[in-house]
Amino acid sequence: MDIHDLIKSLKEQNDGKIVMLVSDGIGGLPQKPGSLTELETAKTPNLDALAKIGVQGLSIPIKPGITPGSGPGHLGLFGYEPLKYIIGRGALEAAGIGFAMTDKDVAIRCNFCTTDASGNITDRRAGRIASDESAKVVETLKAIKIPGVEIFVEPVKEHRFVVVFRGDGLGDAVADTDPQKTGVPVMEPVAHDAASKKTADIAKQFHEQAAKILANQPKANNHTMRGFAKKPHMPSYEELYGLKAACIAVYPMYKGLASFAGMTLVGSPHTLSEEIDVLEKEWKNYDFFFVHFKYTDSRGEDGNFDEKVKMIEELDKVVPRISALKPACLVVTGDHSTPATMSSHSFHPVPTLIVSDLARTDATERYGERDAVLGGLGQFEAMYLMPLAMAHANKLGKFGA
Amino acid sequence: MDIHDLIKSLKEQNDGKIVMLVSDGIGGLPQKPGSLTELETAKTPNLDALAKIGVQGLSIPIKPGITPGSGPGHLGLFGYEPLKYIIGRGALEAAGIGFAMTDKDVAIRCNFCTTDASGNITDRRAGRIASDESAKVVETLKAIKIPGVEIFVEPVKEHRFVVVFRGDGLGDAVADTDPQKTGVPVMEPVAHDAASKKTADIAKQFHEQAAKILANQPKANNHTMRGFAKKPHMPSYEELYGLKAACIAVYPMYKGLASFAGMTLVGSPHTLSEEIDVLEKEWKNYDFFFVHFKYTDSRGEDGNFDEKVKMIEELDKVVPRISALKPACLVVTGDHSTPATMSSHSFHPVPTLIVSDLARTDATERYGERDAVLGGLGQFEAMYLMPLAMAHANKLGKFGA
Repeated sequence: MDIHDLIKSLKEQNDGKIVMLVSDGIGGLPQKPGSLTELETAKTPNLDALAKIGVQGLSIPIKPGITPGSGPGHLGLFGYEPLKYIIGRGALEAAGIGFAMTDKDVAIRCNFCTTDASGNITDRRAGRIASDESAKVVETLKAIKIPGVEIFVEPVKEHRFVVVFRGDGLGDAVADTDPQKTGVPVMEPVAHDAASKKTADIAKQFHEQAAKILANQPKANNHTMRGFAKKPHMPSYEELYGLKAACIAVYPMYKGLASFAGMTLVGSPHTLSEEIDVLEKEWKNYDFFFVHFKYTDSRGEDGNFDEKVKMIEELDKVVPRISALKPACLVVTGDHSTPATMSSHSFHPVPTLIVSDLARTDATERYGERDAVLGGLGQFEAMYLMPLAMAHANKLGKFGA
Repeated sequence: MDIHDLIKSLKEQNDGKIVMLVSDGIGGLPQKPGSLTELETAKTPNLDALAKIGVQGLSIPIKPGITPGSGPGHLGLFGYEPLKYIIGRGALEAAGIGFAMTDKDVAIRCNFCTTDASGNITDRRAGRIASDESAKVVETLKAIKIPGVEIFVEPVKEHRFVVVFRGDGLGDAVADTDPQKTGVPVMEPVAHDAASKKTADIAKQFHEQAAKILANQPKANNHTMRGFAKKPHMPSYEELYGLKAACIAVYPMYKGLASFAGMTLVGSPHTLSEEIDVLEKEWKNYDFFFVHFKYTDSRGEDGNFDEKVKMIEELDKVVPRISALKPACLVVTGDHSTPATMSSHSFHPVPTLIVSDLARTDATERYGERDAVLGGLGQFEAMYLMPLAMAHANKLGKFGA
């Protein structure tokens, strides 16, 4: 029996709410050996008060030593084994711009490129054409029509854009058309299985029509296609946990990931404070709330230790507003670490705190990396955080007699 | 290679004995955040002395967040992956009354019920008929004879009884006959596969004969059948570990579970002290002893914090008698936690202590939840406790050269 079948068979309903507050990239590193991390440096009286009555530990996003992107990082937090539930790159790109995929869709990450008179690629990224210029070129591609399929073309950033084909019988086993080098032409889209033949044909037609439209574009006269992907198939929060789940996030990527899990996107917040406004407003309407805070990751990626500290202090300030709602289980965690010293996501496990009447209080008194090492949750794979949250909200029955 | 194949290939014999002392439901919770658990409250000088020289940690019975019943809880302790080795409900019920199943048996949990003149169920539990009355009715069913199969009918409690068919070619894929509602008749037993057709036929004949015998029983004139189950197939302790294993327990359920693992049931103790008498008496005859203490769980289930504390203190008192036998490895653990504050089994990991000359002593000085968090065994799934016990008794060779 796998963990999902188990959870489905044990899930129980009650009135308790679960809040999962995800501070993106919250885990960090000291600036020099023995000094404090961003989280340990930050003044976090509210989180520390919760650490005293709750239980903490370290969440391993994927497996020891593995650094996750945002996709697998969040999938793990949501309880999906991240090495099993792989989100295709096209679908992730679509999620990243907030495009709501359906089961009939195949999404494709496209790059503008430049080709010479013989059709050989001269620049695989079209000189990283500026986003506003690129968006205008993308607009011209919306004229493409192919019978039997609905087509969406959306800009992303610089030379990147997303194409989605919507129709029946579209498989996603189609090879990339980017040859990964210059001096050769864009490749033809080739289907790897019979179910994807129609998709490859449509992609070919799309490329031919696009080539005509782009012929006179000086900066981006061609394009490549990569990461053909259908919407990932995963059991929804309702199915798995029996939870009516809401996503409160500012950025499209996280909304997209949450929607793959069947969460409802609520509100249109622009700041953390507005996110908590939405939480308060929607409190009675859902059982589970995923609240995403982006800026701990952003300042980590910037390599700005002091600003990341400030963002953590911002996070701490809203905590009493969440506690005041009296969730049956409050989880504070991150999808991965983003140490400012590395200016990137990292593999380090993530301090994770659970507050609940059923928490077995540990001896730790602060929410942070060194305390988490000594916490009662130990170190665990992120995919077990949802079972733990469900258990702490008393929403899981007994396995076997 | 799975863990069982690995252990089988590495097992070695020596004269050292292993004792696994299982204090059912020993793990607990504080009565308020930050206060002490039952185990931390109890005065346990003997266990604490062992904690000082041994190594402790936290055993996760199934997976993080999952609360086990006694069946999967013990299977994990015995080294069987509890999500793989599932004990059917009928077999567990048979184990619970100490019925020794063979490989030719199918066990069925039966409920007395009442039906009206049209044969529709009026009470699915026959008004929870008193156990002594029910036992007399069960006695009348022993008259049932069906050619080609041996039949056992045994009372359990109130409206519950067990039926076992013993014969060749009896599969256990037969649907329950309990419609789970009143106002409709008892369902026919239906086989889900060809190998279970004979079982379904016999069950039908049994029900027909029973209906005649019960026709004039005012309180229980019919019965339903659920959880058809063969004896679970698992490698024995002898096969897996090369251990001659003995079970010392008071309650039939734990004897039944141990017998599934091929342990020999020794003695007929009624108290913990008598259990240790049996241990002393049988010391020379076995390599492994499973000693089960029930009352920590019972008082936890009662919600009686103080009485659970006393039971833990009772347990502590017998520890020197076990140590005096000089086991190569003594394990003190539980199959799950039963916090008095919850009056039920829980998902919290279980303080687990290993004493052996090979233990890498940790810094902990007391056997208890907070100390176990800091112990050298860390947090581990219960199914790895037997490999750890074998290793600490120096009974596992090297893997690979």
